[in-house]
Amino acid sequence: MPNPTAAMLVIGDEILSGRTRDANMHHLAVELAGRGIDLREVRIVPDDHAAIVASLNALRGAFDHVFTSGGIGPTHDDITADAVAAAFGVPIDVRADARETLAAHYARTGHELNEARLRMARIPEGAKLIDNPVSAAPGFTLGNVHVLAGVPAIFQAMLASVLPGLTGGAPLLSQSLRILRAEGEVATPLRALAGEYPDLSFGSYPFIRDGAMGSQIVIRGTDSARLDAAMMELVRLFPGDIA
Amino acid sequence: MPNPTAAMLVIGDEILSGRTRDANMHHLAVELAGRGIDLREVRIVPDDHAAIVASLNALRGAFDHVFTSGGIGPTHDDITADAVAAAFGVPIDVRADARETLAAHYARTGHELNEARLRMARIPEGAKLIDNPVSAAPGFTLGNVHVLAGVPAIFQAMLASVLPGLTGGAPLLSQSLRILRAEGEVATPLRALAGEYPDLSFGSYPFIRDGAMGSQIVIRGTDSARLDAAMMELVRLFPGDIA
Repeated sequence: MPNPTAAMLVIGDEILSGRTRDANMHHLAVELAGRGIDLREVRIVPDDHAAIVASLNALRGAFDHVFTSGGIGPTHDDITADAVAAAFGVPIDVRADARETLAAHYARTGHELNEARLRMARIPEGAKLIDNPVSAAPGFTLGNVHVLAGVPAIFQAMLASVLPGLTGGAPLLSQSLRILRAEGEVATPLRALAGEYPDLSFGSYPFIRDGAMGSQIVIRGTDSARLDAAMMELVRLFPGDIA
Repeated sequence: MPNPTAAMLVIGDEILSGRTRDANMHHLAVELAGRGIDLREVRIVPDDHAAIVASLNALRGAFDHVFTSGGIGPTHDDITADAVAAAFGVPIDVRADARETLAAHYARTGHELNEARLRMARIPEGAKLIDNPVSAAPGFTLGNVHVLAGVPAIFQAMLASVLPGLTGGAPLLSQSLRILRAEGEVATPLRALAGEYPDLSFGSYPFIRDGAMGSQIVIRGTDSARLDAAMMELVRLFPGDIA
């Protein structure tokens, strides 16, 4: 059975303007690979209602899971929850359990649960809350869409609570080998090898060492015996050129 | 006149598997902002012909420019040029000037221009070559699509040669202010201020200092006088709370 598939939707003007480097995509990629869920596409869109709705609908129709990051805080540029509700065509309003979570948090920290903060309790109808152990404001899962915060520490905590509930597949394994020959010299034998192992994926990435070009070959797949066999053939193809 | 728009298409299994962190997106975002070209969307897709063609056609139809990174080397997983040709419905073959550039480079470096390397001279019909000062294999521009290498040093060099030829707009300016109050407390006055300046964009990003939450407010726009005016109002709204 093929592995489940996933996509990510990163929401935020600050990524597209170059102010902030996204850190969540790489974390999600590594976590999903380890659970056998194939990350197939990432999109980054601005804080724009129409752009979020259109991308979300495209991704949730094409993949088993969609993870979003960003846009769930209390300020006017936090429009993700409303966009998700619009994408699914469901109503959204302040929800009692989310409001209570926030009320308890602000009572504990000596702050007021004002109108702006109450926006963080707006949850689309039918969603399941995702716990936020850092700053209380919850994420949520609606259908196959998991709505997480953009702040990396909160994104990671929310993801850690969502992932155990998802059905994974065979974890993606990889082996890599550094060959002291330029890509143009390994390309032809590598293509033949890749043809013999259609169940594995072969990537080639150039590097420079002591001024000479080399090729790092990465073999990915879910069957460790097949990976071992391919790697042994690769080593045999380039005697004396292994870094 | 509104600024020209752009999108980026990052091509590569290695980004989606978590092996590599993309470094080109942030560089492109900063460069485009400085030239008044609005980066509106980024997509990351695997080394998959159908995925590249579909994303490329969606993006080139929606934005003034599309920049791609990755997949133009000599190995079997380098399929970008063929996918671009397919997206535009034009033929692709080894082109004489690209072949000569490669032949001269490999003659100079003492390597053979073999069949695998010759693939890097495959250029879709009608494209304009983009110089590669690092490793000779050219990128190209076809229509509104600029096809660049994935290796960051080469991506940056190619981008530097493409950008001067593009019509820019008013550079995106930004000012930021750190306020020693949590986002939930700045949200309401900030929303009102943003309403007074519909020509500017206001972003709010939480930070933690000495255990207390603060809000970094970033105001972006193209008119420096308007930015100054909005920033002065913002400072007046939070007397005594400026970090």
